[in-house]
This record gives sequence, structure tokens and C-alpha cells, in this order.
Amino acid sequence: MLAKIYVTLKKGVHDPQGEAVHHALLSLGFRQVSDVRIGKYIELKLGEMERNEAEKKVTEMCQKLLANTVIEGYRFELE
Amino acid sequence: MLAKIYVTLKKGVHDPQGEAVHHALLSLGFRQVSDVRIGKYIELKLGEMERNEAEKKVTEMCQKLLANTVIEGYRFELE
Repeated sequence: MLAKIYVTLKKGVHDPQGEAVHHALLSLGFRQVSDVRIGKYIELKLGEMERNEAEKKVTEMCQKLLANTVIEGYRFELE
Repeated sequence: MLAKIYVTLKKGVHDPQGEAVHHALLSLGFRQVSDVRIGKYIELKLGEMERNEAEKKVTEMCQKLLANTVIEGYRFELE
């Protein structure tokens, strides 16, 4: 089973990396860009298990390690 | 228009960050995890434009700045 996890900064949390990329895009001439936010994309390979159990495990991994839940949110898909 | 961009290391490229997270998950007791790969997730807000043009622009941004195409691949969705 494959888990695709997206970790993003919560709304209102300052994103200096996104700002730097935004400035770089503007200076390359991409004036259509009005905002950039940068997050993490994590792919986890899991052994065979029930979908239910996988959901529980991945949620636990996000809470404990993969996301800093004070400033970051997460969502994931299982395939 | 919103572009959701996923930048991932190409197959075969060593991913030390993914390895570190893998070890951390194992040491937390998540023994079901057999592989971890870490990439970037980028959200771009774009002004109003044709879907066609947006696709062209975002491809150009990925090629020029957002992905290092020697070692990274990218894909994106437009909403």
C-alpha cells in the first residue's frame, strides 16, 4: 500500500521559503504569480494491511513525526 | 487559478532525508513502513488566464526554477 502525504503550513503562518520562490519567479518574469506556498510531499510504502488500519497508522505517523501540528496541517491518500 | 505542483526525486536518486525519516518511523515502532521518499509540494496562485497558457507557464517555471530536472521530476494539477 502506498500513502501519499501532503504537509502544508497552516493559513496565516509565515512562509519565507515560499516568499523567496515567489520573488525568484517574479524576477524571472512570471508576473502572473500572486502567491507561493511550499510544503512537503511524502510517499510511504507500507506492507499489506487493511485500509482502516493504514489510515490509523498514517494519521499517527503524521501526528507524531511527519507534521508539526502547531504550524502545519496534513492530508493523505492511500493507494 | 491554482497550480498544485509535486516535485519528486527521480527513481534511483539517493534520498537521505527520506532515509532519515524512515529510520525515525522504525524507531517509533512503525515497522510496516518499507520505504520513504520526500519531495516538495508547491501551491502557486496565478492570475486569471487560459488553462492552456497556465500549463505552458507552469511547465516553464518548473523547468527553470522549481525542479532540478537532472535529479527531480515534476507533475502538476490546475484548479
